[in-house]
Amino acid sequence: MELMLAVFSLLFLFATQASPPLDQVLKYIDDHQDDYVQHLKEWVAIQSESGSPAKRDDVIQMIQIVGERIKSLGGSVELADLGNEELPNGRIIPLPPVVLGELGKDPNKITVCIYGHVDVQPARIEDGWATDPYVLTEKDGNLYGRGASDDKGPVLAWLHAIEAFQALKQELPVNLKFIFEAMEESGSKGLNELLSEKNETFFSSVDYIVISDSGWLSEKPVLTYGTRGLCYFFVEVKCAKQDLHSGLYGGTVHEAMTDLIGLLDSLVNSSGHILIPGINVDVAPLTEEERLLYKAIEFNPEDFKNTIGTTELLHESKEDVLLHRWRFPSLSIHGIEGAFSGPGAKTVIPAKVTGKFSIRLVPDMDPEKLNNQVTTYLNRVFAERRSPNKMQVTLKSGSRAWIARFTDKQYVAGRRATNKVFGVDAEMIREGGTIPIARTLQHTTQKSVMLLPIGGAGDAIHSQNEKISRGNYINGTKLFAAYIAEISQL
Amino acid sequence: MELMLAVFSLLFLFATQASPPLDQVLKYIDDHQDDYVQHLKEWVAIQSESGSPAKRDDVIQMIQIVGERIKSLGGSVELADLGNEELPNGRIIPLPPVVLGELGKDPNKITVCIYGHVDVQPARIEDGWATDPYVLTEKDGNLYGRGASDDKGPVLAWLHAIEAFQALKQELPVNLKFIFEAMEESGSKGLNELLSEKNETFFSSVDYIVISDSGWLSEKPVLTYGTRGLCYFFVEVKCAKQDLHSGLYGGTVHEAMTDLIGLLDSLVNSSGHILIPGINVDVAPLTEEERLLYKAIEFNPEDFKNTIGTTELLHESKEDVLLHRWRFPSLSIHGIEGAFSGPGAKTVIPAKVTGKFSIRLVPDMDPEKLNNQVTTYLNRVFAERRSPNKMQVTLKSGSRAWIARFTDKQYVAGRRATNKVFGVDAEMIREGGTIPIARTLQHTTQKSVMLLPIGGAGDAIHSQNEKISRGNYINGTKLFAAYIAEISQL
Repeated sequence: MELMLAVFSLLFLFATQASPPLDQVLKYIDDHQDDYVQHLKEWVAIQSESGSPAKRDDVIQMIQIVGERIKSLGGSVELADLGNEELPNGRIIPLPPVVLGELGKDPNKITVCIYGHVDVQPARIEDGWATDPYVLTEKDGNLYGRGASDDKGPVLAWLHAIEAFQALKQELPVNLKFIFEAMEESGSKGLNELLSEKNETFFSSVDYIVISDSGWLSEKPVLTYGTRGLCYFFVEVKCAKQDLHSGLYGGTVHEAMTDLIGLLDSLVNSSGHILIPGINVDVAPLTEEERLLYKAIEFNPEDFKNTIGTTELLHESKEDVLLHRWRFPSLSIHGIEGAFSGPGAKTVIPAKVTGKFSIRLVPDMDPEKLNNQVTTYLNRVFAERRSPNKMQVTLKSGSRAWIARFTDKQYVAGRRATNKVFGVDAEMIREGGTIPIARTLQHTTQKSVMLLPIGGAGDAIHSQNEKISRGNYINGTKLFAAYIAEISQL
Repeated sequence: MELMLAVFSLLFLFATQASPPLDQVLKYIDDHQDDYVQHLKEWVAIQSESGSPAKRDDVIQMIQIVGERIKSLGGSVELADLGNEELPNGRIIPLPPVVLGELGKDPNKITVCIYGHVDVQPARIEDGWATDPYVLTEKDGNLYGRGASDDKGPVLAWLHAIEAFQALKQELPVNLKFIFEAMEESGSKGLNELLSEKNETFFSSVDYIVISDSGWLSEKPVLTYGTRGLCYFFVEVKCAKQDLHSGLYGGTVHEAMTDLIGLLDSLVNSSGHILIPGINVDVAPLTEEERLLYKAIEFNPEDFKNTIGTTELLHESKEDVLLHRWRFPSLSIHGIEGAFSGPGAKTVIPAKVTGKFSIRLVPDMDPEKLNNQVTTYLNRVFAERRSPNKMQVTLKSGSRAWIARFTDKQYVAGRRATNKVFGVDAEMIREGGTIPIARTLQHTTQKSVMLLPIGGAGDAIHSQNEKISRGNYINGTKLFAAYIAEISQL
C-alpha cells in the first residue's frame, strides 16, 4: 500500500461546516438515548449464541428481528438461506439466514453497504460476570451485557441513526444496503459463498462498505484500515502405537514430545523474531511516511504493559509496539494436543502429540507461500533430529491480511464525521487480529471497505463483563448519522 | 553396588535336588488349580478400586477378606488403622486398614515377610474390555479380569502355597509375616508412617522380604533386584494476568509458551541424552561384569520395537536398550498444563503454562541434589533468554532408585525355586519404573528385599484386558512354595 499522507491531508481541508439538518439529527439522537438503551436491552436479552447449538432458535429469532426492523424502516429484506450445519455429534441443525436489506434506490445518491452481526459469544454468570450477561445493566455510565459492544450495540446504532433521519422527515442522504449475519462468532459458515453468489446483483450498485465490528485503541475514536491475516498450523509427531509408561520405556524410545518441543522451539526466538527463513521477504517495506503515521497515534505502552500485567514488552517505543501489533508478522505457540494437560503428575510418554501455532500475516504475505516455507523449514529441522518418528505439518486455515486505501473518499467522510461528533481527529489504525469479513468483502466486491468502530478500548468483548459505554453507544449512533451525511457530499 | 558374579555362580552350584515333600506340595497345587482359579474369580469380583471413593466399601471389604483368610490359615492378624483420607472435594472417607499378619514363631526357622496389595486400578467394560473386567473369564489359557495379575493373583498364590503345605500336613519350613495393603494404586497413603512405626516390633524378627507385584520381561521367569527412582518436576512460566488474544497481543509480549518451549527443549537432545550438567556424576559406573549380566538376558529389541510401534530405538544392542531402561537415567516430557490442549484451533496466548517432566533416577543419584542441578540449570537457561516473565521450577515428588544385593541368600533361593518349577534359570532383571515399596521396605527395615514376580510380560496391568495366564498363576503358586522350601535350607 502506498501512503499518500499529503493528498489525504489536502482532502481533509475541505471538511464541511456542520449542516443545520444534521445538527437536528444529532440532537434527536441525544434526546432519544434512553429509548436506544431500552432497545439494546431487548436485543441483549436474546441469547443468540451461535456457538451453542441448543440456542440456535434464539439465534434465528434474533436475525429475524433484524429483518423486521429493516422492513419497519421501509426497507426490503431477503432472508438468505444458508442451509444446515452438521454438528460434531452428527446432528443437523439449520443455519440462521443472512439478512440482505435495501433501503433507497435513488440513482442520484451513492450507496453505502453496512455489515454487522447479531450473534454473540457464549456467556454465563458463573464465568465471573458481575451481573446477568443477558440483562443489560447500566453502571457508572457503562452498559454491561453480552453483545452490548460486539456487535448488537453497533448494529442498533446504525438502525437508530436511520430512524432519526426518518423521524425528522429528512430524506436519507444515501441509499443503504445491509448485510447482517448471525454466525460471525462461529466462523460465518456459508457467508463467503453467499457473498460471491450475490456479487453481481446485490453489490453491483454499492459504492462503499462500512463494517462496525471492532473497537477503539484508546479513548479516541478511530478509523481502521487494516487487519492482519492468520495461518494456523498443526504439527503432529507420532512415536508409538499407544501411550507408553515413562518408567518402562523412558530411555529407549525417541519420544514424540521431545521431537515436538524441538520443532516448536525452532520457530521463534526469545526476542519474538520468527526463525522461518524467507518469512520477511514478502512483508511490504515500511516507509518513513508510514512510521510517522504511527508516531501520531495516541498509545501509551506503559498502560498497555499494565493491562497485560508485564514489566517489559518485546519492543520499547510506542511506534515499534504498534508496528509489531499490526504491521509485522508474529508467531504464537498456542498449545499441544495429545500430551498430558491436566493438573498433577502423570508419568506418560504420549504416543501422538500435535503442536498448535499460528502466524499473523501482513501485506503482502501469501498463506500458500507461507505454508511452503513453514513446511520446508520444519521438515529440515526434523530431518536434522534423525528421529524415526512420523512428523506432519498441516495448514489448518489461512487468510491474508486486509488493507484498505485509506485515501478513499469514505475515509475522508469518516474523519469529517468523527470531527463533527467528537471534536477530535480520528486515529488511523489497524487491527492485529483478523476480521475475515473485511478482506472477503473487499476482495469479492472490489469496493472500498472501512472499519468504523464505536466500541471502546476496554469493552471486554468475548470476555466476562462485556460492555459498551453509554457515551460510545450514543455518540456512535451520531457518528453513523454524520458519516452518511458526509459521504453523500463527497 | 558391587556385582559378584563369581561368588553368586558358586553359591548356585550348591543347588539342591528336589526334595520329595516339596514335590508333593507342587503336585497338590497342580491338582487344585481349578479351586485356585475359582478363588481368584471371587476376589476379582470385588471392585476394590482404591482410586474411586465410591468404591471404598469394596476396598475395605477386600482387605478384611484377606485378614480372615490369614486367620483361617492359623495366623494372627492386626488390621492396622491408617485413619481417614480427605478427598479433593473436602469429603472425608476412611482409609482401608493394612493387614499385618503373622504365621509361625519358631525361633529355629527363618522369617520371610511377604508384601502384596489387593486394591486395583479402575476398570469399566466401556474402556474397551472384551469381557466384564470384574468377571474373571478364561480364554486360551489366560484369566482375564482386573487385578488378576496386579496384584490379587500373586497374593492368592502365596496363600494357596501355604495352604498346600498345611493340607498335606507338612510343617511350614519358615515363619511368615504378611503386609497386605489396599491403597497401593493410590500412592499407599499412610503406609510409610506405619512401616516406620512397626519397624522395631513387626520387622525385628524378619529375615527376608519378598514382594510379588511386578512382571516378567519375556517368557522367562525373573528375579528383580532393582527399580529406578523418579523425580517429577513442574516448570511454570507466567507472562500475563490473563490469557491474551494472539491477534491483539502477538508480536508485543514475551509469550510464556515460547519461554517454556525453550526451557523444555534445553533438557534433552534428540538422542535422548540429558543435557543437565552434572547429572551423570552420581550414576554408578557400569562395570564389565555388569554388562555381561545384561548380555545374558533374553530380550529381543525387534519384538520390543514392534510392541511400541517404532522402527528405531534410541539404542541398538540388546544390552544398551536394557541398560537405558533400567540402569541409566532418562528424561521424559509429559505435557503442559494451562496451554490450549483441545482439538481444533484456538488463537490464545496462554498467560500461565506449566511444563511437566520427570527424570528416572538410578543408583547413586539423589533427588535433592538432582533438584538443585535441574533448578540451577533451568534458571541459567531462562536468564539467557532475558525474558521479563516469572519462572519457577518445583520438584513435585522425588524417590531414589532401589537396588538389592542380589548375592543375598534369598536370591539364591529364588533361583533354585525357579529352576525347580520352570526348569530354567531365572533372569536377573531390574525395572525401569518405580516400585516405591521396595525401597521403602529395604530402607526402613534394612532387610534383604527381593521382587519375585509371577505376572507375565504382556499382562496389560493398569490397562484394558488385564490378565494372568493360568500357567503363570499356577506355576507362580508352585514357585512361592518352592521358594519357602529353598530359603529354609540356606
